Amino acid sequence: MTIQRKKITVVGAGFTGATTALMIAQKELGDVVLVDIPQLENPTKGKALDMLEASPIQGFDSNIVGTSDYEDAADSDIVIITAGIARKPGMSRDDLVNTNAGIVKSVCENIKRYCPDSIVIILSNPVDAMTYAAYHALGFPKNRVIGQSGVLDTARYCTFISQELNVSVEDVRGFVLGGHGDDMVPLVRYSSVGGIPIDSLISKDRIESIVQRTRVGGGEIVNLLGNGSAYYAPAASLVQMTEAILKDKKRIIPVIAYLEGEYGYHDLFLGVPTILGGNGIERIFELDLTTEEKAALDQSAESVRNVMSVVTV
Amino acid sequence: MTIQRKKITVVGAGFTGATTALMIAQKELGDVVLVDIPQLENPTKGKALDMLEASPIQGFDSNIVGTSDYEDAADSDIVIITAGIARKPGMSRDDLVNTNAGIVKSVCENIKRYCPDSIVIILSNPVDAMTYAAYHALGFPKNRVIGQSGVLDTARYCTFISQELNVSVEDVRGFVLGGHGDDMVPLVRYSSVGGIPIDSLISKDRIESIVQRTRVGGGEIVNLLGNGSAYYAPAASLVQMTEAILKDKKRIIPVIAYLEGEYGYHDLFLGVPTILGGNGIERIFELDLTTEEKAALDQSAESVRNVMSVVTV
Amino acid sequence: MTIQRKKITVVGAGFTGATTALMIAQKELGDVVLVDIPQLENPTKGKALDMLEASPIQGFDSNIVGTSDYEDAADSDIVIITAGIARKPGMSRDDLVNTNAGIVKSVCENIKRYCPDSIVIILSNPVDAMTYAAYHALGFPKNRVIGQSGVLDTARYCTFISQELNVSVEDVRGFVLGGHGDDMVPLVRYSSVGGIPIDSLISKDRIESIVQRTRVGGGEIVNLLGNGSAYYAPAASLVQMTEAILKDKKRIIPVIAYLEGEYGYHDLFLGVPTILGGNGIERIFELDLTTEEKAALDQSAESVRNVMSVVTV
Amino acid sequence: MTIQRKKITVVGAGFTGATTALMIAQKELGDVVLVDIPQLENPTKGKALDMLEASPIQGFDSNIVGTSDYEDAADSDIVIITAGIARKPGMSRDDLVNTNAGIVKSVCENIKRYCPDSIVIILSNPVDAMTYAAYHALGFPKNRVIGQSGVLDTARYCTFISQELNVSVEDVRGFVLGGHGDDMVPLVRYSSVGGIPIDSLISKDRIESIVQRTRVGGGEIVNLLGNGSAYYAPAASLVQMTEAILKDKKRIIPVIAYLEGEYGYHDLFLGVPTILGGNGIERIFELDLTTEEKAALDQSAESVRNVMSVVTV
Repeated sequence: MTIQRKKITVVGAGFTGATTALMIAQKELGDVVLVDIPQLENPTKGKALDMLEASPIQGFDSNIVGTSDYEDAADSDIVIITAGIARKPGMSRDDLVNTNAGIVKSVCENIKRYCPDSIVIILSNPVDAMTYAAYHALGFPKNRVIGQSGVLDTARYCTFISQELNVSVEDVRGFVLGGHGDDMVPLVRYSSVGGIPIDSLISKDRIESIVQRTRVGGGEIVNLLGNGSAYYAPAASLVQMTEAILKDKKRIIPVIAYLEGEYGYHDLFLGVPTILGGNGIERIFELDLTTEEKAALDQSAESVRNVMSVVTV
Repeated sequence: MTIQRKKITVVGAGFTGATTALMIAQKELGDVVLVDIPQLENPTKGKALDMLEASPIQGFDSNIVGTSDYEDAADSDIVIITAGIARKPGMSRDDLVNTNAGIVKSVCENIKRYCPDSIVIILSNPVDAMTYAAYHALGFPKNRVIGQSGVLDTARYCTFISQELNVSVEDVRGFVLGGHGDDMVPLVRYSSVGGIPIDSLISKDRIESIVQRTRVGGGEIVNLLGNGSAYYAPAASLVQMTEAILKDKKRIIPVIAYLEGEYGYHDLFLGVPTILGGNGIERIFELDLTTEEKAALDQSAESVRNVMSVVTV
Repeated sequence: MTIQRKKITVVGAGFTGATTALMIAQKELGDVVLVDIPQLENPTKGKALDMLEASPIQGFDSNIVGTSDYEDAADSDIVIITAGIARKPGMSRDDLVNTNAGIVKSVCENIKRYCPDSIVIILSNPVDAMTYAAYHALGFPKNRVIGQSGVLDTARYCTFISQELNVSVEDVRGFVLGGHGDDMVPLVRYSSVGGIPIDSLISKDRIESIVQRTRVGGGEIVNLLGNGSAYYAPAASLVQMTEAILKDKKRIIPVIAYLEGEYGYHDLFLGVPTILGGNGIERIFELDLTTEEKAALDQSAESVRNVMSVVTV
Repeated sequence: MTIQRKKITVVGAGFTGATTALMIAQKELGDVVLVDIPQLENPTKGKALDMLEASPIQGFDSNIVGTSDYEDAADSDIVIITAGIARKPGMSRDDLVNTNAGIVKSVCENIKRYCPDSIVIILSNPVDAMTYAAYHALGFPKNRVIGQSGVLDTARYCTFISQELNVSVEDVRGFVLGGHGDDMVPLVRYSSVGGIPIDSLISKDRIESIVQRTRVGGGEIVNLLGNGSAYYAPAASLVQMTEAILKDKKRIIPVIAYLEGEYGYHDLFLGVPTILGGNGIERIFELDLTTEEKAALDQSAESVRNVMSVVTV
């Protein structure tokens, strides 16, 4: 018997992909392969080498390789897809969806060929639709195709609550359902600090303002940066999901999962609370929702379905 | 300006004290002084040296010193009191209380003299009464005299919930109020996994059984060990409190705090949720309790008051 | 594909075994099975449960089970043997060797049956001879039977150097060859702080005194404790070896390895520098020794061979 | 007494500065202030907020603030200067030096005013000269003005050795003296893996090639990236120095220190091995050099002096 390191491939060596690779290596979750297109092979190699040169200082033994050749990614345990373009001025939403769906599908062809047993995590935008595209392109069982949105949305929500009360982020527990966008559904009654429901500590007005800020949390960063979008918190989100799977932690994490009847939805990818472990999505929790919450979730589901409908599978 | 390491003194070099010292050093929270009585000076030195010899392997730079001389503890930022005897066969409860109160008072005389600005954390048994004894012996403001019970009780409660559902301990949030004993008050409605209330995931019977097991959690370990009581989880509890203070984390942690009207109690040390930060106890949260919960807390308070009344201050 | 946690079994739930179990769990290296004899089943369960109850506080997801049934250890990736008795007054060395060899062999029968693919690490005393006994009882290839002594000896040596110069333990690099005992061979010319050879920073006298203190480092702790021997640094040593293997780190670590010609010795277990990785011992480094160093190593080898000869295999 | 978090200011919110801020926060070394010029205030705020939103996921309690106002940096314990421009096509070296010296001096005016007791770490390029400029602009004692080059150079050197031998980075110990540039002086005889000198494991040719690759290690990344220079390993280097100081670790780290006679140089900033602790540079080690090594160091010192001479102080 030989014990081998796990292998994680990150597709897309932009800010998010590169930061994800670094954080995986820092945690010694396994060896990392950072893949981008042939035109970007050198910068991809450069980023990987720069990270690797941090390893003697930070004390981690994870190899990090930059490449444009999917053969280097062969037999990865996890593949994370961050590839895709940002919406450009004058570009219609449908054009963006189809361009990125094309990219995701092409990446998935390679994953199917080189990493047929992998668990795949998708971040590419718009993420609900891209997870759907990946699911069809991969043909993998639904437990192994997972979209990221809820970890990030929840993290933003928790950050704002922590700031509001000046308490440790370790003690804030938030909860966000639904699509990754303006109609995401933060569940206030499931949100607490140190177990204490936030509505007994924060005024209704302030909570509403925190919820609203969370909904547009991605846009807030885009506006500040002026050029580009968030990547630190998105990368951390991907790494949390990766760690939950690789360590079979059975964490309760909101992810974009394929629904077949849960919450009354069929053939839909939507953000719901799940157990993430060694099998990927091991369980979907169906929460009892109030009429108001269900209506909000329905609206979010409808938005997601609209975007998904643009994707040709 | 010179930046100095923090200094933490642990009084009592038994299993709990020694394990606490190790865990503080592992986290590089500061230098550690392990103090015990002169008769145990050599074993105390031996344990400290053995831990220190683990430092090149585990990579921590914290000095650990074993001593019986409180001068070595001078100007500690935090002092943790684990000293005290275990109840012996034939010993009345009042005898135990008075013996340990004597030990705690004597320790506090030294703290007062050598560490007049320290924050003091008490674990000695029975902890509610010993925290009261320490408070009077020290004459420190109430924010700097803190008893441990809720972290440990909550940790046991969370362990059992995690096992029941086979989910990560990182996602379980429990909540225990009141004294450290059979009438502690686990608040089920403030308990959740990944934000989801446990009563929607676990049957009422099973929850009741988990609550009951938590109440006698200390006894369960005593019975299994046959000779001695728990020390790993108690040590971890003390370290969490220490870290919250030294890093000014503003964590929401249930501790034994001096109440002056909160929850309707006066001049009483009782387990309540607080914010722990650089000033020790920075805030006490007063939760809205149901009539049933308040009755249970009253009973717990009454038990604590009975034990406290034995202590001569 | 399912990703499963690694499984590590620790045989012997005394102080060293228990501390080892805790440290493995803290690092989330995998799930831990703590095994001891049926008469100690309850205390073993008690220690395991106490550790597990620390997991929500320290935030680690590793299961820890106490048992006396080797079936619970089935298919472990690593087995660590800490079992054995301490030398009692009036007991001859040969009696100690044979008693512990008997224990080790009996443990190995179970390992052979339940964990046929495991890598086995031995700490039981006298460790060189017990590794030899285990090797024969197991019938495993030599790369999978590994004794601990050099990590601990080196750690003590580095601790003393760090104290002498008041520098970080992270920057001290020591080197100890040979058997674990009074004739171990610390290689001064391979010892450095921050890369600077210690003989340019510490006087010859002081170095000699540090070397001598290292040689009797185990005895120093025994004398201080008065009752029992070191366990914190020994446990840390075992965990470093375990981590090197489970993460396939290819660390250069001095361990007790089976020699077949290296350094001119045949059929001997002796402490030598190796690469520890996913295959256990992946390489043995043969250093160029001075005549003096080789003579010292010969003497150490002779001592080891004497003890080994007592073992019936 | 109140225990407060440490405060670290990072000047320059480019890739290196931002990555440095993140790594400091991840290690909970204190609260971080990321400062850049008013024109970049929004992107600076955006990066800081994005990092902060990673904190609930990664579990760190460090505040991170983006600003262009040095008042926010008031009373920082450490200030790290990463500000400066990159050399542009057609720009002479002297122009680069003077432009960046101007930036550094202006930053130092603010540090002097708002953080008069801080320890200052400089990364701006060319770093030897910029440390000199900072030293004069600040008027701080020499132990509190520290340039980074040796940590990074050593890390690259160790990475290449680790790859050559396929061993853990944790066990490689390299050593680089002198200026940060083509004439840096890697000391081969002070380089080892697991304590074993590398020249007994790697051929002379391969070592020479590793040394040469280290010398141009910065250029290798620049060439690969095509647009920009390394930032992951540089940031890790700054964080290692920061941690050594804030935890008073007494680490032996090569930094750019002000020499007043050491190695025979006067009034020169040069890379030498030091002890970094709570007082900044607490000791400079003077190594015995061979004639060849001294000649190489002289040449490096000469190069540094040439660049320093361009700076008007």
